[in-house]
Amino acid sequence: MQAGQIAVDVPTVTVQDSVARALRLMALSRLPGLIVVDGRGRPRTVLPGTQVLRLAVPGSYQEDAALARTIDEAHADLFWEELGSLTVGDCLVREMARPASVGLDATLLEVAALMARQRSPLVAVVDGTGGLFGAITLERLLGKLALLAPDV
Amino acid sequence: MQAGQIAVDVPTVTVQDSVARALRLMALSRLPGLIVVDGRGRPRTVLPGTQVLRLAVPGSYQEDAALARTIDEAHADLFWEELGSLTVGDCLVREMARPASVGLDATLLEVAALMARQRSPLVAVVDGTGGLFGAITLERLLGKLALLAPDV
Repeated sequence: MQAGQIAVDVPTVTVQDSVARALRLMALSRLPGLIVVDGRGRPRTVLPGTQVLRLAVPGSYQEDAALARTIDEAHADLFWEELGSLTVGDCLVREMARPASVGLDATLLEVAALMARQRSPLVAVVDGTGGLFGAITLERLLGKLALLAPDV
Repeated sequence: MQAGQIAVDVPTVTVQDSVARALRLMALSRLPGLIVVDGRGRPRTVLPGTQVLRLAVPGSYQEDAALARTIDEAHADLFWEELGSLTVGDCLVREMARPASVGLDATLLEVAALMARQRSPLVAVVDGTGGLFGAITLERLLGKLALLAPDV
């Protein structure tokens, strides 16, 4: 089985989209992450869900658990209302390394190894021109592997 | 809103469980990760889904994408059949640092910051004795945050 055969369509975001839109899109689509595409629809990066969430957590609370604990419950419930017009691009600097992507003919082992290595439960599948063909989620990969080896 | 109010029951594994069982459990429960508990039901570690998957990917393929590419499709489909009797404990050494866990009274901001920091879409919620009370998934957290701030 090849990546192109199990890839599915997923909604994407661009660096111009607001962080709030990205979070809402991920929640509504029940996706474990988001693919950030450029103007030509090619994956620029693939963000694991926790790192989409990170875009919404004010920097000072990300690294300092004690500081996060000082915020009272009522304000803590609404932390992401403070996002305002912050965009995905504003928050993305550290994540722009290499997108977690594979070609159409990648094997399921290659997809699994990439997910494990990049700690990304979402992998972009690109065609020969680098355009986004689809995506594979960890859940979908596990489902396919379970079907192929039903006795495991 | 506090962690104890949105935590849900999830199945857990121990270090004695087979990796095959852990993968199956995660696939069937549609969980984004697994909590590994000790003999007294206290979280030893929380494994993000990609790191449960990593337990099943032979070490040499994890780091070397070119090597994974040399395996033909038929064999790549079945890589996790080779797990045999390997247990979660056999594979866990590097992951035993600190479990991604919070107390019952942690705020949603604390949960979000922990998920982002530890790159874990699953967080264990523990009671005053360190026992496992429940778990919060990234999907559940996003759902609750969206309800609290419906206009974002």
